[in-house]
Amino acid sequence: MEAVKVGLLGLGTVGSGVVRVLARNDEEISRRAGRAIRVVRAASRDLSVRRDCDLSGIALTDRAQDVVDDPDIDIVVELIGGTGIAYEMVLRAIDQGKHVVTANKALIALHGNEIFARASERGVTVAFEAAVGGGIPVIKAIREALAGNTIEWLAGIINGTGNFILSEMRDKGRDFEDVLSEAQSLGYAEADPTFDVEGIDAAHKLTILASIAFGIPLQYERVYTEGITRITREDVTYAAELGYRIKHLGIARRRDSGVELRVHPTLIPHRRLIANVDGVMNAVLVRADAVGSTLYYGPGAGAEPTASAVVADLVDVTRALTVDPNNRVPHLAFQPEALIDLPVLPIGEAVTAYYLHLRAQDRPGVLADITRILGDLSISIEAVLQRQPAEEATDASIVIVTAAVREANMDEAIRRIEALDTTADHVTRIRLENLN
Amino acid sequence: MEAVKVGLLGLGTVGSGVVRVLARNDEEISRRAGRAIRVVRAASRDLSVRRDCDLSGIALTDRAQDVVDDPDIDIVVELIGGTGIAYEMVLRAIDQGKHVVTANKALIALHGNEIFARASERGVTVAFEAAVGGGIPVIKAIREALAGNTIEWLAGIINGTGNFILSEMRDKGRDFEDVLSEAQSLGYAEADPTFDVEGIDAAHKLTILASIAFGIPLQYERVYTEGITRITREDVTYAAELGYRIKHLGIARRRDSGVELRVHPTLIPHRRLIANVDGVMNAVLVRADAVGSTLYYGPGAGAEPTASAVVADLVDVTRALTVDPNNRVPHLAFQPEALIDLPVLPIGEAVTAYYLHLRAQDRPGVLADITRILGDLSISIEAVLQRQPAEEATDASIVIVTAAVREANMDEAIRRIEALDTTADHVTRIRLENLN
Repeated sequence: MEAVKVGLLGLGTVGSGVVRVLARNDEEISRRAGRAIRVVRAASRDLSVRRDCDLSGIALTDRAQDVVDDPDIDIVVELIGGTGIAYEMVLRAIDQGKHVVTANKALIALHGNEIFARASERGVTVAFEAAVGGGIPVIKAIREALAGNTIEWLAGIINGTGNFILSEMRDKGRDFEDVLSEAQSLGYAEADPTFDVEGIDAAHKLTILASIAFGIPLQYERVYTEGITRITREDVTYAAELGYRIKHLGIARRRDSGVELRVHPTLIPHRRLIANVDGVMNAVLVRADAVGSTLYYGPGAGAEPTASAVVADLVDVTRALTVDPNNRVPHLAFQPEALIDLPVLPIGEAVTAYYLHLRAQDRPGVLADITRILGDLSISIEAVLQRQPAEEATDASIVIVTAAVREANMDEAIRRIEALDTTADHVTRIRLENLN
Repeated sequence: MEAVKVGLLGLGTVGSGVVRVLARNDEEISRRAGRAIRVVRAASRDLSVRRDCDLSGIALTDRAQDVVDDPDIDIVVELIGGTGIAYEMVLRAIDQGKHVVTANKALIALHGNEIFARASERGVTVAFEAAVGGGIPVIKAIREALAGNTIEWLAGIINGTGNFILSEMRDKGRDFEDVLSEAQSLGYAEADPTFDVEGIDAAHKLTILASIAFGIPLQYERVYTEGITRITREDVTYAAELGYRIKHLGIARRRDSGVELRVHPTLIPHRRLIANVDGVMNAVLVRADAVGSTLYYGPGAGAEPTASAVVADLVDVTRALTVDPNNRVPHLAFQPEALIDLPVLPIGEAVTAYYLHLRAQDRPGVLADITRILGDLSISIEAVLQRQPAEEATDASIVIVTAAVREANMDEAIRRIEALDTTADHVTRIRLENLN
């Protein structure tokens, strides 16, 4: 059978990785797919840059549309990134009846609804396994392998940079800023690390995971997003003393009244497998009614891990080339007409446990005041850790772990605690999930 | 679209689970698959037994062939188990052009080559996700999601009973026999626990994983299989002191000269994620050239986890019903004509590190004798732990961790050590894998 012809948009780290993996594993891939998959044409803005792969046999151009418009090409792989030219080129490819494989989480999270609708109209597939969790096949797992389940919730470590920073803070007692600088010099974090440490990248990915888990439209703008920049070494240590680790999680949970979509630092019990996912590795834990808990773990970024996901998509799309579009796996796991626009709950409606950390005067009655406020708002206390003030200091550290409560109640409790004369005017609050 | 009609063979724990899950998640499944999947007929040896599911609307029979021969049925689900009537019925279904979904690992490991060949001839699919790792989609992950990779090795905790026993031994300092009795009373272990604790069940599953990872025929009879019955509390403790945990692993490794296929107790570093997979949970760690290490974790058995995998297969087969057989995912991941009969290496050719534990007289020169024997056979020592004899005893315990070495060399070393006048005549040897 004739080779499938792939056109590549972008020859950066991941693009070069795809060229390398397709070449190196050409035989292994053909043995599986039943036909070869070859990059025949590739576009890159700057053709003078030396690439970390062998480009012989690949026609090069600096105009993406040359690739998209090439009538010989069966599948377009979009690795440009961002939502500008990538968006244009993906739609252009679809309009020409070409299948698309992309690793672009921002594009799917922000424009996926439009892109998939257009793709369905044209009877083509847009595959995006590489958009979440790098080389971990979490899209395939949720979309296909859990098809018999009602998915209840999922929680993912889906940003490697953030996880590297939190792992280093815990393992070596380092400060956030210090580790971030190192991550930047190692190339894990961008010069502008906002996307990673403020949770925007994770929110893009969570948007996608939630859609395929619950069968809801993509709605990035409704994800509550909180970064890890305010996590202190002290909180990491207190969490450890209480038997928890702090991870930056993306959490999607189905509730009777709607779905929770939130990205924030989270205390999780240290015995949970996902609590032991360290460094730049990613993992997604999924809770579903029939199977229970399953976890998918692996490298969440990097040239060849991402290429692994892109090539898996290429093999899937190759198999789907001659298949009636109605028989393919739907883009968002559920048939387009079966998507349900469940309400996304505002963060005040979220229900979660909390870790609270505050400074208070070291005198009788202070803890009683605080626990009374919590009690008045029906917030149960699971654990308390009180530390005497260091010499010369007058404030004690009080750490409280609560049971699950509606976030709006906790907001009110914190407001009242901060208003006490005896407490410093800032309570640190980190959400806590038992994930069981 | 009309509902897909399923015929069920076997209404035991898993069969009832499948009926329950299909009924409970009927809407969720239809939203995904685009059509309903319904059990219309089911066979069970004894129809008088009360089942843990609602059988209304399902025509019952005590003759499996009534289901298989029913011309209305699209897909036959085989949950009888074993290789007797299950084997007959699966072939009979294939011969009638029916697709099959099975959870039967013994059947696939022992007769898969024949079954898949026959299925290919008849243009039908035999799906078997539930045969390995219960509800964990590890077959799909390896067969489809890693299609761009050359798989180097995999290591799996693929028997929940064995993992429960080893976890309890470590956590609570209990003895093997004691935990086994409890596992039997909890229903985790069969009255005859041989299949689980001697590694036969794990060897069936490893056979399947190795085939789809490397593209080799199923060859159960060549798997080296060693159980966990001789693991002592003492070895579990020494392993922990050295920073390891003992897990019963199925390991498949590609080497230049062939493949290693082995099931045996294994020391692994306690910081590896898979070392922290406890109780009845399963996990498979896969090392592949592009993606690196990925891990798949979840419940390896149980009615609804297994049903989750069966239903996922039903959805996949439903989508494949109208697809040209040549475009479907091949049974063993690789096209049948592309399977390569790589030699399976005898265990003497395996290369692995070792944990050795022996008793020796507590006098000068003993350790020197032992280390000289190892040195003579070019076996490097990574760690030594020597314990003084307890009061009244004259023997000291010596524990040695070696670097990786050809197993035949280690056999010779152990023969020589056991022949020393100063040592007890049995050396405990447990293989050790760093899995990095």
